[in-house]
Amino acid sequence: MITIFAPDGIGEVNPGDDVAEVIIAALRQHDQQLLDGDVLVVTSKIISKAEGRFADAEDRQQQIDSETVRTVARRKSMGIVETKHGLTQAGAGVDNSNVAPGRILLLPVDSDASAEVLRSALSDHFGVRVGVIISDTAGRVWRVGQTDHAIGSAGVRVLDSYAGRTDDYGNELHVTSVAIADELAAAADLAKTKLEGRPVAVIRGVGDHVVAPGPSARDLLRTGDEDLFWRGSREAVLGALLAAVGYPERYEQVVRLWDRDELFAAITDGVDLTDPVRTMIRTMIVAAQPLWP
Amino acid sequence: MITIFAPDGIGEVNPGDDVAEVIIAALRQHDQQLLDGDVLVVTSKIISKAEGRFADAEDRQQQIDSETVRTVARRKSMGIVETKHGLTQAGAGVDNSNVAPGRILLLPVDSDASAEVLRSALSDHFGVRVGVIISDTAGRVWRVGQTDHAIGSAGVRVLDSYAGRTDDYGNELHVTSVAIADELAAAADLAKTKLEGRPVAVIRGVGDHVVAPGPSARDLLRTGDEDLFWRGSREAVLGALLAAVGYPERYEQVVRLWDRDELFAAITDGVDLTDPVRTMIRTMIVAAQPLWP
Repeated sequence: MITIFAPDGIGEVNPGDDVAEVIIAALRQHDQQLLDGDVLVVTSKIISKAEGRFADAEDRQQQIDSETVRTVARRKSMGIVETKHGLTQAGAGVDNSNVAPGRILLLPVDSDASAEVLRSALSDHFGVRVGVIISDTAGRVWRVGQTDHAIGSAGVRVLDSYAGRTDDYGNELHVTSVAIADELAAAADLAKTKLEGRPVAVIRGVGDHVVAPGPSARDLLRTGDEDLFWRGSREAVLGALLAAVGYPERYEQVVRLWDRDELFAAITDGVDLTDPVRTMIRTMIVAAQPLWP
Repeated sequence: MITIFAPDGIGEVNPGDDVAEVIIAALRQHDQQLLDGDVLVVTSKIISKAEGRFADAEDRQQQIDSETVRTVARRKSMGIVETKHGLTQAGAGVDNSNVAPGRILLLPVDSDASAEVLRSALSDHFGVRVGVIISDTAGRVWRVGQTDHAIGSAGVRVLDSYAGRTDDYGNELHVTSVAIADELAAAADLAKTKLEGRPVAVIRGVGDHVVAPGPSARDLLRTGDEDLFWRGSREAVLGALLAAVGYPERYEQVVRLWDRDELFAAITDGVDLTDPVRTMIRTMIVAAQPLWP
């Protein structure tokens, strides 16, 4: 039996606040304590607030850029980027919900490290083994809606590998590993919800997944060109065209464009090309973004 | 408080079995019944088995092809395809785990319909409102490991829309909707696990998400070219090249190739091209699959 409990009573978190103390106080209000094997899932927003990761809303794009390693895909003003943390996410996770008007909030500096600080403090306080996950909300490819997943973790078996294990029939299992930390984050979101001021959930009954520090949420990330979808369908074509004309370094500039003529000009600028090649490039630009002329 | 309970004692399910009766019997063994607002998450595998969706392992590729609408991406022999159901998934969800050797199992014919049959039977039997989710396991883009999500649903608010809702600061929320059905499926997987013969979980305490029949897991799908990642990074380039030479219909044949010369030959076959264009195509093929020469 697994239980998930999201205490209310956690008020606004401010820069410099000790998140462990905030959580301990909220649990005390409910006469709750953490038990051995509990996993605590904490919304990244309160970690960011405690870390003072605020910025002016006016600087939104600049802040997104400073968090970004590369653009993965773009649809008009909405960019999906790979962040310094190795996350691939719309707008680099920069958000203004549950933040004072005129302000925005960046993701925590190092969510795995923040999770470990929290794990250590809570484990010491309650005298038990606990796991900590820092969760964030993200959209998914091919699926509508958003779910929570783990962007930081400490003391949790983030991946449960089935490699080499067999089923009752002796078949080796094709599922190589279950992303336990992401399933825990998703489960916690059902109890926390987004609006009711309950940014923390305690998951009990998953003690098998509470382990010694070591695995981290970074183990869940595929970055750079490791993924079959390392660039959006449109951006892959634009990137390949730039490789073909010898200017791959124009990628970040080019993927921000949408107009076909502007795209053509930016890709071919300063390159000596025959007419058939120019025609080919034009056709491929059209093929790259068929829906949005 | 949310609780998740995965009863053991559900034995092998065979073609023609009534899954509702199997579940009722397992709950009875544990002196459990479904309460108003419970959500039952059922692994698709036992639905497929009850539907007799078996095939010979020798016909694996043929069965995958028959389930496939189009190839989304491919890495050597591993294809990610869009299925007739609108799912985008490796191998069209065809699997041999927990199936007798020499046999494979396809996904249920219509998981939403199967969920509704189950919901109706369980609701009648226990005299309460319940929701049913049929879950499957899938890998994710940019993230390691697999999680469970919903491929069928009945009586569940699959998407909880926050559109127009504001936070305590009056900011409109950027999360447009939470994929509740997927979070429920992920949460259930933590209790079911893959090997212990517990293919069903009861989630209690989420009654707000149990609704009249209407929403279905199909609401969660983005298909065709609606997604920014509708084709893999490599396949997008190959598709655009085929559009440029006037043979888009060769896409399925071409994406199965890996060798650069074979790719070049298949793309340019029968097309009259200038040398600079041929060079351009060769360069783009290399750019499309940089890691795997």
